[in-house]
Amino acid sequence: MADAPTVTEQLATDAVRRHDPRVRGFASDNYAGVHPEVLTALALANGGHQVSYGEDDYTRHLQEVFRRHFGPRAEVFPVFNGTGANVVALQAVTERWGAVVCTESAHINVDECGAPERVGGLKLLTVTTEDGKLTPELIDRRAYGFTDEHRAQPQVVSITQTTELGTCYTAEEIKAICDHAHQLGMTVHLDGARIANAAATLGVPLARFTTEAGVDILSFGGTKNGLLLGECVVVLSPERVRGIPYLRKMSMQLASKMRFVSVQFEALLAGDLWLRGATHANAMARRLEQAVRDIDGVTVLRPVESNAVFAVLPREVGERLRKRYRFYFWNEATGEVRWMCSFDTTEADVDGFAAAIAEELASVA
Amino acid sequence: MADAPTVTEQLATDAVRRHDPRVRGFASDNYAGVHPEVLTALALANGGHQVSYGEDDYTRHLQEVFRRHFGPRAEVFPVFNGTGANVVALQAVTERWGAVVCTESAHINVDECGAPERVGGLKLLTVTTEDGKLTPELIDRRAYGFTDEHRAQPQVVSITQTTELGTCYTAEEIKAICDHAHQLGMTVHLDGARIANAAATLGVPLARFTTEAGVDILSFGGTKNGLLLGECVVVLSPERVRGIPYLRKMSMQLASKMRFVSVQFEALLAGDLWLRGATHANAMARRLEQAVRDIDGVTVLRPVESNAVFAVLPREVGERLRKRYRFYFWNEATGEVRWMCSFDTTEADVDGFAAAIAEELASVA
Amino acid sequence: MADAPTVTEQLATDAVRRHDPRVRGFASDNYAGVHPEVLTALALANGGHQVSYGEDDYTRHLQEVFRRHFGPRAEVFPVFNGTGANVVALQAVTERWGAVVCTESAHINVDECGAPERVGGLKLLTVTTEDGKLTPELIDRRAYGFTDEHRAQPQVVSITQTTELGTCYTAEEIKAICDHAHQLGMTVHLDGARIANAAATLGVPLARFTTEAGVDILSFGGTKNGLLLGECVVVLSPERVRGIPYLRKMSMQLASKMRFVSVQFEALLAGDLWLRGATHANAMARRLEQAVRDIDGVTVLRPVESNAVFAVLPREVGERLRKRYRFYFWNEATGEVRWMCSFDTTEADVDGFAAAIAEELASVA
Amino acid sequence: MADAPTVTEQLATDAVRRHDPRVRGFASDNYAGVHPEVLTALALANGGHQVSYGEDDYTRHLQEVFRRHFGPRAEVFPVFNGTGANVVALQAVTERWGAVVCTESAHINVDECGAPERVGGLKLLTVTTEDGKLTPELIDRRAYGFTDEHRAQPQVVSITQTTELGTCYTAEEIKAICDHAHQLGMTVHLDGARIANAAATLGVPLARFTTEAGVDILSFGGTKNGLLLGECVVVLSPERVRGIPYLRKMSMQLASKMRFVSVQFEALLAGDLWLRGATHANAMARRLEQAVRDIDGVTVLRPVESNAVFAVLPREVGERLRKRYRFYFWNEATGEVRWMCSFDTTEADVDGFAAAIAEELASVA
Repeated sequence: MADAPTVTEQLATDAVRRHDPRVRGFASDNYAGVHPEVLTALALANGGHQVSYGEDDYTRHLQEVFRRHFGPRAEVFPVFNGTGANVVALQAVTERWGAVVCTESAHINVDECGAPERVGGLKLLTVTTEDGKLTPELIDRRAYGFTDEHRAQPQVVSITQTTELGTCYTAEEIKAICDHAHQLGMTVHLDGARIANAAATLGVPLARFTTEAGVDILSFGGTKNGLLLGECVVVLSPERVRGIPYLRKMSMQLASKMRFVSVQFEALLAGDLWLRGATHANAMARRLEQAVRDIDGVTVLRPVESNAVFAVLPREVGERLRKRYRFYFWNEATGEVRWMCSFDTTEADVDGFAAAIAEELASVA
Repeated sequence: MADAPTVTEQLATDAVRRHDPRVRGFASDNYAGVHPEVLTALALANGGHQVSYGEDDYTRHLQEVFRRHFGPRAEVFPVFNGTGANVVALQAVTERWGAVVCTESAHINVDECGAPERVGGLKLLTVTTEDGKLTPELIDRRAYGFTDEHRAQPQVVSITQTTELGTCYTAEEIKAICDHAHQLGMTVHLDGARIANAAATLGVPLARFTTEAGVDILSFGGTKNGLLLGECVVVLSPERVRGIPYLRKMSMQLASKMRFVSVQFEALLAGDLWLRGATHANAMARRLEQAVRDIDGVTVLRPVESNAVFAVLPREVGERLRKRYRFYFWNEATGEVRWMCSFDTTEADVDGFAAAIAEELASVA
Repeated sequence: MADAPTVTEQLATDAVRRHDPRVRGFASDNYAGVHPEVLTALALANGGHQVSYGEDDYTRHLQEVFRRHFGPRAEVFPVFNGTGANVVALQAVTERWGAVVCTESAHINVDECGAPERVGGLKLLTVTTEDGKLTPELIDRRAYGFTDEHRAQPQVVSITQTTELGTCYTAEEIKAICDHAHQLGMTVHLDGARIANAAATLGVPLARFTTEAGVDILSFGGTKNGLLLGECVVVLSPERVRGIPYLRKMSMQLASKMRFVSVQFEALLAGDLWLRGATHANAMARRLEQAVRDIDGVTVLRPVESNAVFAVLPREVGERLRKRYRFYFWNEATGEVRWMCSFDTTEADVDGFAAAIAEELASVA
Repeated sequence: MADAPTVTEQLATDAVRRHDPRVRGFASDNYAGVHPEVLTALALANGGHQVSYGEDDYTRHLQEVFRRHFGPRAEVFPVFNGTGANVVALQAVTERWGAVVCTESAHINVDECGAPERVGGLKLLTVTTEDGKLTPELIDRRAYGFTDEHRAQPQVVSITQTTELGTCYTAEEIKAICDHAHQLGMTVHLDGARIANAAATLGVPLARFTTEAGVDILSFGGTKNGLLLGECVVVLSPERVRGIPYLRKMSMQLASKMRFVSVQFEALLAGDLWLRGATHANAMARRLEQAVRDIDGVTVLRPVESNAVFAVLPREVGERLRKRYRFYFWNEATGEVRWMCSFDTTEADVDGFAAAIAEELASVA
């Protein structure tokens, strides 16, 4: 493979570097860039011609890569982004009259500008939760009215792993949900925008809390874990799913030069890059939690079970801190903030941030 | 900027090169890879954190880059792919009850699996054409029934430049269409998946046949001209357009790590890469046309005004030839084939292909 | 049944009669009112309580009424209007990615403001025809690209009987279309807004050119044949159809007091009212054709095979005539007019109209 | 008007009376039939030809009728049913990216099979309430994130008057909601399926709690108040609304023989039929409440402010009672039942029902 990556010799471009690559914050794992191994993989897949729209050698091989993780029946369909993965997957397991049971805090409910409703024609039946996690009991609050034509028919349960609130379902919890949903004749979708973080937290293979737990279809996230761009719809129960190739195209999620999406996932999943990145990000979040736990004026609100730390601190401290490090207010009303770590967060970043928090709090007191 | 691109040192990846980068065909400009200058730009934009969803420094700067080409009122919105650009743009210039006048052969009509109808709720009013080009007269065949509530209201004319049939509108032809559409109270959308090829053919700046001709909004294609992935919605008449940020998100076309889409367009458009690639691809198409013009048994059907050659040759010759070089039958009924050149097509590729055509034809005779 | 209809005693109402019930024109069978037998049926079904949304005794019985006409497998679903019947029916036989092959002149294409696209998410693949009738050959012009994810998948053929151009398919022609569609794996929908007129023209039972010819689902028109309001989706191939109860509700076509829609259809179909009305309307159209055939300056353009006469006459004559009798210009460009007869058109109406035509033409000459 | 209604002489019909017009229950105001004055109005409007699709004399006059109630700027658009009125109205005041703030118990959320989402592409932002009524404070729980492209944009507040839980907003409460919504740049829609019952409860003209309170658009219910079928979209703030004629047609809510929908509303609203029916139904509900209040084992749960009584009684009593009188369980989990009165409920009906309740409870004890 001596002649493989050829980018390295080509440094000319009319683009200009416009940012300082040493600056990182705690706003989002989407603020991070591309893992160098992924960038190398892109170069590797470049050159020559490859069939477009997914008939290329990289996408073909990707089926094998995913099957190693999710079992021999898994089928993978690369798409552009997480909203796309979710909406394609949910359409594939619903009739036109279908509805989706999910949490009030689900990304599909609050962060997709209504794409599930508008693109998919889906009705969301939302449940309020404390920790972002559904249970069979919570599902029952919305999963009723089967055969009543006046009610959008509950046909899917959608859960997020790890959740939007940084919590993580155990494999047993997911199995209980899947068993319950299947008894109701419903299918189960898992939004895995941060699925790698869940595997890292649980310390189990990906199949343990997906395929083996009974999940039927999932959105596998790559962007938040070091890819340039890319998510995958992964079908685990092919008999419950239909039309994904058409749904992907008509939902405007079919990449023409798909080799460049697929090869990134190969870089992520063929070895352990997916797990290394997630494990590191989780560890950084725990480090941050520990660092701030004893600072007066900061309260960590939720269990830190992934790469997110949710905390409350005085509003004006938050405002001042944001001038030094990027992060988001999660809930304007309560003053809750969210601090995200990513594959490229360093221990020094965490320690510096914790110190800044302490400083700003001290300057107020 | 001594420490800028850092990919070059990182060669490790678990991905495996699976294709021969020396093999190229004539199937599609989507089969080609990424121009090395673009790959370098990706590396340049990597590292550190940048605000996601388009608030980054690269996307901000991209506004300036596009304004240099399209005038000071232009606004640019990067998206994932051409279908996405078209459907976002068309929604932005229509009411819910709007219809789009376009050709029967338009990409939005035949190659998007109904995305304009399904995602955008748009009705297409199609006209049969000889050469893929609309005219004021052809528009009038569909643009009527204004204020009649039974008829989907014609609100946009959508043209493709260069067309799906490889032809190219002159700036005057586009101006006539825009003037006519505006008199009817309609707006004009231009699908510019191959807009660079048009500029190369016409030998004029991009604004000449867009902004100056009266086009209101366009889809600017990058993928077919050497990008890894990316298109842009470019607004030229801001007063006729609304809601693009929302439409882009809800149409699932909002990239989280947008810097990596934007920097590719900077690499393309800050200098002349866009024009170099297109000019070269066009030249290769003309070279191919000239090479096959005198071969008995091949008929070139349409004017070669971009990077496509449409031809007819005996069906079995086509079949045999496809075992040696990739390309598509354009029309199964008539046996018409389409040969596409791209930025990476070499003179040797063309000459070899023409020789192969001659050989296969000879072996039949 | 001595105590049955009770309207007759109740003449008080605050509504005011605002029109002259002796005035009729040739604009549309929708301009006519309600057949007196239908109005009586409404009174009959009134009083007391009946379960809403179709669980009433009238709707239940209607199943039997339709089965007498369409065979023992028929299932009937009353809806509000023809557009509603069409869009519910088409959704019931398509996946989200489905497309419908129909004529360019089909009501679903030109007269429903894009409802098939916007409500149903359907792509229409239209064919130009001379006479408003599809054939297997014409279907083939659009029914291709099966399994190609870039192409909206052709899943239904939709024909109109009698057509929007007043022509009538024979049972054999419909059978040929159905056989062809089924061989392609497609289903067949028949828009029967004027299906009674077709039975009257052909002189055969309704099943002959529907159930027996292979039609899978149809829209059965009542409004144009003397009902106050109401159409039915009639399923003939239950195994090819799914979800109509849900689709009807979510498409906003589920009447709460359905007994009043259903009883109208009982009045129409339990006896021969449906056929009497249509036979009469057809006869009046033929009488009109014969009356104008020899008038200089009028040309009847199409075969008169239902209750419509399409003709061309000098534009200014048309304009003057419209001040005396209501009718529509069918094609503004060609000056073609459409004259419709209905169940309440009288011989005197026709003769008076023909005389008026002759007068106006004479006054020009 | 000696020659006006002509039904009276026509008693022949092939339809058969299939129900006992003396039987009434407490299931729904949709179970009732047509008020005799309305049926007479239908006969009055029959005969002769009238322009279809709303250009008739009855629909034209209806504008005046509605303006007498809602003020000189009101515009009325008859449609088929309540879901249709709601979805047409909501589309008319939202962009494609709009969202609707409403209660969790709103009809648009729970009883329309997702029509707002699927037909209108609308996102519903629901709030849990005790009594089915929104307040400015409750609106604020969902009306945020303006200009955030990730969030479906809150553009309308939709309230129901009287509510689905039988409660009634005061004019002041509605004014407070409208003032708040307008300050947020939102419009206000009122679902008036039972708006007449509200006027009867409040003892004020319709405009008091609509036009004068700041409501921008409303769905005016007729079917539950004695019409055969029909609802109206009523525009009160024309400057905030657009495209209703198109939206009505493409949402499949445009009646061809519209005179028969419009004349019913004239019969209802030209005099006081609307108020008589609603006042009577309300009075019957209060009579029922009083009759059961002192029966041991029945608890009336909510204030009786319209024609509905919500109560809890032992499940098996409810089951037995339903064999004698039709009504619905409102909440299967809690055993709550809903008893509806209508314009045709008699005092004897109420007294008989109350006696039956007492009997069934006694037989259990």
